[in-house]
Amino acid sequence: MKTQAAQVITPEDLLQHWQGHRALTRRVIEIFPEKDFFEFSIGGMRPFSKLADELLAIAAPAMKGIVNREVQPYNEEGREKLIFKAQYLQKWDEATAEINKYWQQLSIEDFNETFNLFGQYEFPIIQNILYFIDNEVHHRGQAYVYLRALGIEPPFFWER
Amino acid sequence: MKTQAAQVITPEDLLQHWQGHRALTRRVIEIFPEKDFFEFSIGGMRPFSKLADELLAIAAPAMKGIVNREVQPYNEEGREKLIFKAQYLQKWDEATAEINKYWQQLSIEDFNETFNLFGQYEFPIIQNILYFIDNEVHHRGQAYVYLRALGIEPPFFWER
Repeated sequence: MKTQAAQVITPEDLLQHWQGHRALTRRVIEIFPEKDFFEFSIGGMRPFSKLADELLAIAAPAMKGIVNREVQPYNEEGREKLIFKAQYLQKWDEATAEINKYWQQLSIEDFNETFNLFGQYEFPIIQNILYFIDNEVHHRGQAYVYLRALGIEPPFFWER
Repeated sequence: MKTQAAQVITPEDLLQHWQGHRALTRRVIEIFPEKDFFEFSIGGMRPFSKLADELLAIAAPAMKGIVNREVQPYNEEGREKLIFKAQYLQKWDEATAEINKYWQQLSIEDFNETFNLFGQYEFPIIQNILYFIDNEVHHRGQAYVYLRALGIEPPFFWER
């Protein structure tokens, strides 16, 4: 076992940080009008439903892969096709529970071990997890612009 | 001194993570057409120059406040008014060096101490720092939509 260097955040706090972001993203999904969630876009970008597909294809499947050290390709297309916002919210909640479950199986040493996520991203697990969070914040930032362009006030960014 | 619980990222890696994001945001500033940087907006949101004002008013001033445990109010309006993109890039680089300098003055214990940032946000310092990063990623996500709406391809999100 490698010596653990002094570090700055506990696994529990990092999970809470991520799930706080996920709770905010869920509110953003909720606030979208049904039709616009699937159709509205700016500048040829994906509608927010497609971005949510990506977030769902990463979060729980990635955590499962990490915990089991099982390299599976990224698979957005092979997932069940969702056609109602309510289905997204349900999948979101299922992913929340799965993430919590897998997280409990991570040891403190795991975070600094390298894993080849989706057979493509060979980085320390902590960096993979920070990437999931950043990617979600990034895409949700896009969704805020979509909402504003639709004349809808997004939730406060600091509400988690 | 409190017992240090097992944690998952070193100060050095967190700084590198933040500065990687800041390098990407700098590229986004660079790629904006001069006029659009100051004027383009969607849905009544701030142009990217105003978002960059916010990011500059947070990053280095916040780190200075944290390191000196000196509570100063948030001050975006009181800063030098920048009217060219080149000035933003210069201030960005100055902030990069300041952040690095202040970061070296943080001890490992500091991250879990509470600080009343800008006299408004009383949280553990690690949470304040994660907030700076998230807020930057969020606003940069907005800028990506502005660029796409302008027909400009943004830099790859994973380039840091």
